[in-house]
Amino acid sequence: MKAPPFEYLSDLPTPVQPVAREHHATVPGEVVSYSDDRRERGARLMRELTGDAAETVVRGLRDIAPDLADWIVEFAYGDVMARPGLDRRSRQLATIAALTALGNAQPQLKVHIQGALNAGCKPQEIVEVILQMAVFAGFPAAINALNVAREVLPR
Amino acid sequence: MKAPPFEYLSDLPTPVQPVAREHHATVPGEVVSYSDDRRERGARLMRELTGDAAETVVRGLRDIAPDLADWIVEFAYGDVMARPGLDRRSRQLATIAALTALGNAQPQLKVHIQGALNAGCKPQEIVEVILQMAVFAGFPAAINALNVAREVLPR
Amino acid sequence: MKAPPFEYLSDLPTPVQPVAREHHATVPGEVVSYSDDRRERGARLMRELTGDAAETVVRGLRDIAPDLADWIVEFAYGDVMARPGLDRRSRQLATIAALTALGNAQPQLKVHIQGALNAGCKPQEIVEVILQMAVFAGFPAAINALNVAREVLPR
Amino acid sequence: MKAPPFEYLSDLPTPVQPVAREHHATVPGEVVSYSDDRRERGARLMRELTGDAAETVVRGLRDIAPDLADWIVEFAYGDVMARPGLDRRSRQLATIAALTALGNAQPQLKVHIQGALNAGCKPQEIVEVILQMAVFAGFPAAINALNVAREVLPR
Amino acid sequence: MKAPPFEYLSDLPTPVQPVAREHHATVPGEVVSYSDDRRERGARLMRELTGDAAETVVRGLRDIAPDLADWIVEFAYGDVMARPGLDRRSRQLATIAALTALGNAQPQLKVHIQGALNAGCKPQEIVEVILQMAVFAGFPAAINALNVAREVLPR
Amino acid sequence: MKAPPFEYLSDLPTPVQPVAREHHATVPGEVVSYSDDRRERGARLMRELTGDAAETVVRGLRDIAPDLADWIVEFAYGDVMARPGLDRRSRQLATIAALTALGNAQPQLKVHIQGALNAGCKPQEIVEVILQMAVFAGFPAAINALNVAREVLPR
Repeated sequence: MKAPPFEYLSDLPTPVQPVAREHHATVPGEVVSYSDDRRERGARLMRELTGDAAETVVRGLRDIAPDLADWIVEFAYGDVMARPGLDRRSRQLATIAALTALGNAQPQLKVHIQGALNAGCKPQEIVEVILQMAVFAGFPAAINALNVAREVLPR
Repeated sequence: MKAPPFEYLSDLPTPVQPVAREHHATVPGEVVSYSDDRRERGARLMRELTGDAAETVVRGLRDIAPDLADWIVEFAYGDVMARPGLDRRSRQLATIAALTALGNAQPQLKVHIQGALNAGCKPQEIVEVILQMAVFAGFPAAINALNVAREVLPR
Repeated sequence: MKAPPFEYLSDLPTPVQPVAREHHATVPGEVVSYSDDRRERGARLMRELTGDAAETVVRGLRDIAPDLADWIVEFAYGDVMARPGLDRRSRQLATIAALTALGNAQPQLKVHIQGALNAGCKPQEIVEVILQMAVFAGFPAAINALNVAREVLPR
Repeated sequence: MKAPPFEYLSDLPTPVQPVAREHHATVPGEVVSYSDDRRERGARLMRELTGDAAETVVRGLRDIAPDLADWIVEFAYGDVMARPGLDRRSRQLATIAALTALGNAQPQLKVHIQGALNAGCKPQEIVEVILQMAVFAGFPAAINALNVAREVLPR
Repeated sequence: MKAPPFEYLSDLPTPVQPVAREHHATVPGEVVSYSDDRRERGARLMRELTGDAAETVVRGLRDIAPDLADWIVEFAYGDVMARPGLDRRSRQLATIAALTALGNAQPQLKVHIQGALNAGCKPQEIVEVILQMAVFAGFPAAINALNVAREVLPR
Repeated sequence: MKAPPFEYLSDLPTPVQPVAREHHATVPGEVVSYSDDRRERGARLMRELTGDAAETVVRGLRDIAPDLADWIVEFAYGDVMARPGLDRRSRQLATIAALTALGNAQPQLKVHIQGALNAGCKPQEIVEVILQMAVFAGFPAAINALNVAREVLPR
């Protein structure tokens, strides 16, 4: 018998390539349950950072590209964003900087501004990062990102 | 008699629009020296962050576009980067994130990686921000930025 | 007899599709009707690939920029997309890859996903190309393109 | 009598430059030589604007992609840049603005700065356009474009 | 007593760093009013070029980032766009070229197309610049910009 | 005793997160060797596609970002590029399209043009994809990519 390894993931898309997710030793009667660390780590971080936001994205991908949903959880959050070498706040501010500069990823910018707040960033810090992009990516990039931020930042 | 208002700026390009830089009251014998805060603040921060790097850029612009040199000092550093709402380390990491994602500003990326080190960022933190861009801007962006970072980061 | 029309071009590459470059009426008294091959070829391909979609775009441009409409038909479809060196399916998948990576051309992405289906691409192939862009242009690019694809791909 | 050559195009916009679309020999026994206007017009403009620069590019493409060389001459210069609705100087400055903002087309930027000079733009006007891009595309874009301009602008 | 220096700016956001905006000589009875040239120059140009459009943007930023509003007036318009080295029409066309090429700044494109009209550009000139971007930034960039232009250009 | 699971990977960077790479059943005498499918699959594909090219990149990252090297092998090649839903040739052509359109990833473009040749693409097909980008990303993007292709394509 195997308990669900992380209940907060219970309604995420079923992994498409589950082969490496669990390994059962071949000895009868003994079950070696192996929970995939990347997936668990990623799902937990994603939930903590973005609450329902990223999970809604991930669920929305289930019909058309379930593997991309897995990659977001396992690779983007589990392998990359969960790494210990940089604190969560800095990671979120760096993400906001990049998405502001790229200028073509408003939905993701919105999710990660919420993520920054959840990671403990102050609204003013988020605004500062966006303002700073006026220097590095031009005024339109900063203005358009602020209009996204306005929808998320608390009044 | 007017002492040079900030000696660490003495060899920066002469301001092209110095008109608002100093104001002399009309009372004979009294000189009200007014030093421009934006310029002083920007030049000091630029020097502290990038050492000779940005100053070399600024000086290199003197022949072709002295006003852009002024704007870098006064607007980019003086108005924006010197703002109090976000710490220097976060500002530098945000800059590295944006320049990595944009992927077409290697010289500036190099300057600001050095700036991040000078602001107290650990090399690993800089690398982490660049790695994270693999998620948001693709692997080529991260790989190419790491090749710039390798030239600057200490061994 | 015709002198070379511009000698400074004499060593430019020979046009590959010279057919429409010169026309000699051979039969006295007969009007030689010449239909522009670029235009006909482009219009036919555009129709076959995109059905009404690109034509709607082209018609929509008539009021403001009729020449751009012509260029789409003659240059984009007639000169480029109709070239024989690459099959239609590969051309459509390459277009989807590029538009996904650029991330700022959703209307065109939609038209060309439909075009890929009309060219015989399987829905899964289209999704694969978009997923692959997560590696080369980042996860936001892939996610946003999938949201466009969802509107076009058959259920 | 000529039937409409492709009825599915019948309600497409009427070509604005239909001159080269049909040719009727009027004099029996006389060969009407028709030189391709797009090509001649494009080659002349390219030569006048860029001197040897673009032609070197075009010749350099001969080995690998001769058709792209043709498209540059016929479409880019002949159809687009030679249009009467905008003066040459404005066209060159617009090109410099775009290439500065894109930030990944230094060789073309160099060619078109030379082209702007040849079209009669003053060096200061070229510098002004580049400086202006600091506002719309960020300081790195402007700085890097100035470094290209420095190689071309007269001392 | 000081009359408001530029009434058309009266409801712009209060400058956050008003120091250096006005200087009063210390001699009793004499008031030397010094109005900040950057701000006045920028506000006047912005008003003349964009009418209510940019001002609406600037006002909209008051709640979330009043300093960005100041930078738009003082730096973008006052320092950069108001420079004498290039005429207004060319500046607006250059802006339209850049925003069309970048492809991710539709709101700003709309404002500056209106600005180009107000600067005296003919609609056809604006369309020409956008069409030209098909060469330098691709057909999708040009098509999408035309769809923005259609909302602004007079019928 | 454990034989090296895939000798062609022997000099790749040591995995940083080797957990889950191999699992040994706990029953004495029986060794259940489990080789990580993602890594093996990715390394094999990378080797087959790019020969030494990508491996040189991966090895070059060992000093500064060994985990990125792992992600390239495991995620980019193992999870994404090795997926069965699209043939190798189409994947390589899609990559070339995207990198040409992005315009800021020349080193990767070079690697993947070689990869396309190794996957069985004809040189002309590669050139066709690049030419096609003149339509979707502009002529500079296509010209600059052809200059990269010239270094790789066979004469």
